[in-house]
Amino acid sequence: MDKKEYALVVAGGKGTRMQSSLPKQFIEVNGLPIVMHTLNAFFRYSDKLTVVLVLPEDDFHLWDELVRKYSFTQPVILQKGGDTRFQSVRNGLDKMQGPGLVAIHDGVRPLVNADIIGASFRLAAVHKTAIAAVRLKESLRVTDQDTTHAVDRSKYRLIQTPQTFDLDLIKKAYQTREDPGLTDDASVAERAGHMISLFEGSYENIKVTTPEDLIIAGALLGRRD
Amino acid sequence: MDKKEYALVVAGGKGTRMQSSLPKQFIEVNGLPIVMHTLNAFFRYSDKLTVVLVLPEDDFHLWDELVRKYSFTQPVILQKGGDTRFQSVRNGLDKMQGPGLVAIHDGVRPLVNADIIGASFRLAAVHKTAIAAVRLKESLRVTDQDTTHAVDRSKYRLIQTPQTFDLDLIKKAYQTREDPGLTDDASVAERAGHMISLFEGSYENIKVTTPEDLIIAGALLGRRD
Repeated sequence: MDKKEYALVVAGGKGTRMQSSLPKQFIEVNGLPIVMHTLNAFFRYSDKLTVVLVLPEDDFHLWDELVRKYSFTQPVILQKGGDTRFQSVRNGLDKMQGPGLVAIHDGVRPLVNADIIGASFRLAAVHKTAIAAVRLKESLRVTDQDTTHAVDRSKYRLIQTPQTFDLDLIKKAYQTREDPGLTDDASVAERAGHMISLFEGSYENIKVTTPEDLIIAGALLGRRD
Repeated sequence: MDKKEYALVVAGGKGTRMQSSLPKQFIEVNGLPIVMHTLNAFFRYSDKLTVVLVLPEDDFHLWDELVRKYSFTQPVILQKGGDTRFQSVRNGLDKMQGPGLVAIHDGVRPLVNADIIGASFRLAAVHKTAIAAVRLKESLRVTDQDTTHAVDRSKYRLIQTPQTFDLDLIKKAYQTREDPGLTDDASVAERAGHMISLFEGSYENIKVTTPEDLIIAGALLGRRD
């Protein structure tokens, strides 16, 4: 029997880097708030998916307004975020019951697509972890006091989301104490002793964090239409 | 006395990744071939700069056509490229005489700007090396047999161009034998025993290598006009 599939979309950002009072996940790009592009990608993958959207509680009213304004009819379970991404993910996981698989995804990665999401669930069903990653296009150096040294970039991967897991595994892993070394869900699972499997993400699957990224996301989303 | 300043723009690509018969540096974006956007950025920095453009010899006639078609009047010294980027840079350096400074730059990074170029020359005048670099926005993992491990991304930098050097230093460094570990000019200088100084590049300063990059470069260049 196939395992139940969940998506946990984390949209807790406060928009400080964006020089905007509107949190970046709600900024309209190509006719729709960024986070709605993101959610639509998951519903395009499967309409059987259970989708939990984690937002700061203060933004729940704004979300309701946007749902009306854009006639967004997809079924989304809202959960309140915490002070950090770590806490927001843990809150989101609290809404889910195993056995199952969960794709944890940044709300501000609107260029994810159904192929990537599907690949992550298929790999996680086998290996229990499936992390979207891409090779580095550019040379990499490591800093060391006053100087820097070249490193072999072919051994490194830039990590994206979705990061998809066996639900019981990641719920247990998130019972650990939060610390600054836990920069993403894969590092939480690794801390709990699990092997971390990567799969090929996409260079298009950018995280929208700066004003330039809005221009880029708009151009890439526009090309798809 | 200020040192003489050179730019070495390397445009040797054959366009295989671009699914295009036209080499990528000649593809028109926002009204101008990519490499002409790149060259214009250097001339906006200073009209006293001596600019050497390294192209495959087979593309010299195409370059002449493009110069006429786009009425490109900037003074550019052409040099023929080699079979690899390493050889192309070495050929370009052969056109220059020290003492001086040289900014080596990818022809397919059209979003470089005068501020970045100026910063690279100022730093190289003091430290003899000045490499544009940016921090990683995403988590980084290193691959290791069957699994992967998180690494502290704050210690790493993604390397861009310009990579600017004392001219005598980099000419001597390029007398070394070519090997696959030498992925950029900084690694050539490091091999010769020099300290490598980084400065802050820009996330906009992308290398155009894929069809998606063309869309992104077009959007970013369009916003500037």
